[in-house]
Amino acid sequence: MSEIDPVKLTADLIRCPSVTPDEGGALVLLETVLAQAGFDCTRVDRGEICNLFARWGDKNHPRSFGFNGHTDVVPLGDETAWTMPPFGAEIKDGIMYGRGATDMKSGVAAFVAAAVDLVTQTPPDGALIITITGDEEGDALDGTVALLDHMSETQEQMSVCLVGEPTCPNTMGEMMKIGRRGSLNAFFTFTGVQGHAAYPHRAKNPLPAMAHLMDLLSSHALDTGTDHFDASTLAVVTMDTGNPATNVIPATCRATVNIRFNDTHSGQSLTNWMQGLVDEVASATGITIDMSVKVSGESFVTPPGELSELVSKSVLAETGVSPTLSTSGGTSDARFVQHHCPVVEFGLVGKTMHQVDECVPVEQIIQLKAVYSRVLRDYFT
Amino acid sequence: MSEIDPVKLTADLIRCPSVTPDEGGALVLLETVLAQAGFDCTRVDRGEICNLFARWGDKNHPRSFGFNGHTDVVPLGDETAWTMPPFGAEIKDGIMYGRGATDMKSGVAAFVAAAVDLVTQTPPDGALIITITGDEEGDALDGTVALLDHMSETQEQMSVCLVGEPTCPNTMGEMMKIGRRGSLNAFFTFTGVQGHAAYPHRAKNPLPAMAHLMDLLSSHALDTGTDHFDASTLAVVTMDTGNPATNVIPATCRATVNIRFNDTHSGQSLTNWMQGLVDEVASATGITIDMSVKVSGESFVTPPGELSELVSKSVLAETGVSPTLSTSGGTSDARFVQHHCPVVEFGLVGKTMHQVDECVPVEQIIQLKAVYSRVLRDYFT
Repeated sequence: MSEIDPVKLTADLIRCPSVTPDEGGALVLLETVLAQAGFDCTRVDRGEICNLFARWGDKNHPRSFGFNGHTDVVPLGDETAWTMPPFGAEIKDGIMYGRGATDMKSGVAAFVAAAVDLVTQTPPDGALIITITGDEEGDALDGTVALLDHMSETQEQMSVCLVGEPTCPNTMGEMMKIGRRGSLNAFFTFTGVQGHAAYPHRAKNPLPAMAHLMDLLSSHALDTGTDHFDASTLAVVTMDTGNPATNVIPATCRATVNIRFNDTHSGQSLTNWMQGLVDEVASATGITIDMSVKVSGESFVTPPGELSELVSKSVLAETGVSPTLSTSGGTSDARFVQHHCPVVEFGLVGKTMHQVDECVPVEQIIQLKAVYSRVLRDYFT
Repeated sequence: MSEIDPVKLTADLIRCPSVTPDEGGALVLLETVLAQAGFDCTRVDRGEICNLFARWGDKNHPRSFGFNGHTDVVPLGDETAWTMPPFGAEIKDGIMYGRGATDMKSGVAAFVAAAVDLVTQTPPDGALIITITGDEEGDALDGTVALLDHMSETQEQMSVCLVGEPTCPNTMGEMMKIGRRGSLNAFFTFTGVQGHAAYPHRAKNPLPAMAHLMDLLSSHALDTGTDHFDASTLAVVTMDTGNPATNVIPATCRATVNIRFNDTHSGQSLTNWMQGLVDEVASATGITIDMSVKVSGESFVTPPGELSELVSKSVLAETGVSPTLSTSGGTSDARFVQHHCPVVEFGLVGKTMHQVDECVPVEQIIQLKAVYSRVLRDYFT
């Protein structure tokens, strides 16, 4: 079997219109390619979402390398603003254009190509597991979670996992991710008693309670950072009343706080801390304060070690750049994989992801396949 | 000349449709009544506003008693909601109905009747000055201010002045006013730099600055009250951002504060105090804070003394109730008169003022004239 061209595979995937939750032909295409190379493929569909599980090698082999990625893409946005066909995969001046070009059909193509080349040309002593979901850009309830549930039910096991999401802010190779901060939103409603501004003692103004609580929250340093994380941050993102009358004390007001937190905290510990302050302010002011917290994700980290060194060395060898080990940025499916095995993320430059005229330099796709191939060779040596 | 019936005069005035700025015939009627009794009357019209100045007695007499009031009334509101004709002055079960019944055609009728009776029946050794404006319910720029300007230009002088506004909350006689708190609104705009909630160090969030400043302002006790005033009050009346996105730090937010202040402060001293805190918070946070202050009125008081005792004793004698000397409530033209001479306010129960079916018990008009008559008799004895 000849080598797989990751550029052609990226183009074929871009031509599949797989806006979440549509499969768009992308997983069918990958299943064909992987099955031909001897992968044992299983479609793990849940609800309206399609996912693909593929293993090469012995299910019980103690050394099993995993790749994780997604073929679903975000909507086109303003379609008329695209200067290139969004599902065309056209190449101009060495740049390939299309929705998913960076996020992350090129990443999927690169690791599928690297995996297929390895098993067809120099079959390793070990196993490879590839999990590809169609629900990373959506609610992510029936995507990688469904694949991990399936693996748990069928006793499939990855020793380590590399997620192929774009991780480099500007230059190929400059950053890999070893974890993520957690994130939560807290919604506060303050309720008092309306009245005339000239007679505040006859009213109960909820605004001083809001000002005081938001001052307490925003002036508190949550921590100073940890070994692998920046300091946690708290941002008051809105405070609203909507009272147009200067002679009226309003009955209610609202505030929202967003916290990005490192491994010093958990969603629950932060909720407890805020509830303590809420109780304090409520009792001091007589204002009823309702707090509702939504934890989007807990923080997690795969501490630097065998896996990150493996990836780091390969990136340096293929790009000449030694990647920073970062825990910054938004969410990814690594937050689910971390419960299964050590996981890191490395991919190309993500600058144009989710934008109009999303695009990828063809050279970067080739480079990314080379990085993944070297990771696999080194892992199995 | 026979005694003037204040009930009939009130009814005649109510039948003049004098919604600000319309004269409606009210001042013409009063000029006729006063001129017949020997008052020297001058119309002091300015812009679209009509006002009446009337003096009985020697212009240079050192003892000159003044009455001040207005014949303009607020609009009818929902005219279909009135159950009695709003300009009909109809009496039902001893209650007279109509716009201005309490605020304050009854007050004007009562003091004009008292004044005319005095000068025609037992002419005093002294002077009486009656100033009646058609611009108390409006902007009040061309009303009592114009009358006082006229008096200043023509060297007319009141020794003391009684404003006939309704002053009693519930029971006839229970309250007179000897001053008013000042009032101001301060409008704050906080400007920072918008950014992503996950990277607060790249943004400048204006919300903590707003929370901190509003906390500082609302937690500060301005004073504990003075001899004639309650404690000053500060109410944060609104704080607004309008940011619906929990992952976005907004660039701007706004807050408004209303202060009701006693004679410990002035609009300027409070502005200076707030500006100091604004500068402090702006410099500590790097947020641009714009403050705009609008002083609606300074505080003023006529300390208890000869005038308030005179009125108080008359009220007690005629109603059996000893009035509280208050500085509470909204604004009145006494704020202009105080620059000219000692001024207090006493009138009937104001419960229905500005409402649909505004009304006055006929008995209260008679009682009010009796109070004013006794004040005049005692003043000139």
